[in-house]
Amino acid sequence: MTDPLPPELVDLRRSIDNIDAAVVHLLAERFKCTQQVGRLKAAQGMPPADPEREEAQVTRLRELADAAGLDPVFAEKFLNFVIAEVIHHHRQISEPR
Amino acid sequence: MTDPLPPELVDLRRSIDNIDAAVVHLLAERFKCTQQVGRLKAAQGMPPADPEREEAQVTRLRELADAAGLDPVFAEKFLNFVIAEVIHHHRQISEPR
Repeated sequence: MTDPLPPELVDLRRSIDNIDAAVVHLLAERFKCTQQVGRLKAAQGMPPADPEREEAQVTRLRELADAAGLDPVFAEKFLNFVIAEVIHHHRQISEPR
Repeated sequence: MTDPLPPELVDLRRSIDNIDAAVVHLLAERFKCTQQVGRLKAAQGMPPADPEREEAQVTRLRELADAAGLDPVFAEKFLNFVIAEVIHHHRQISEPR
């Protein structure tokens, strides 16, 4: 048998689980937006990736992260991680089957 | 000069920016929790990683993602991405300098 967890740890894990649930629901909403963007871009013949927009997003998120006490390097890695998934979706929408 | 963006795209990008700001603030809060977890684990001599807890988190988040219309595979990748950063932080806390 393992030792029981410290109550403070159990409490922190509950908060982490609540935050994760909120983030997952926000990401679901975000992909709904980017799927609309993907369809719009495909319909207008616009390229899936937009380096200028991505640069503006990175700059803004790094600033927001810094103000919120989150490592800006992590915020940038996070955005790149999400954008990579979005571009993958956009390519799937725009490519002929 | 480039063509002006379709108004629908501008609007969607504003929603994406709002969602990203919300996620960044939630992640800032999440890392505050995991830093407390890291200090607690270091103080009690507990290992930084906890495979059983991580497995439960993955299962739960995949279910939440599925219900929210988010690709469960992406939700799992996202959690692994965040956990990798957390374990990196915990190692920094527990390692002697």
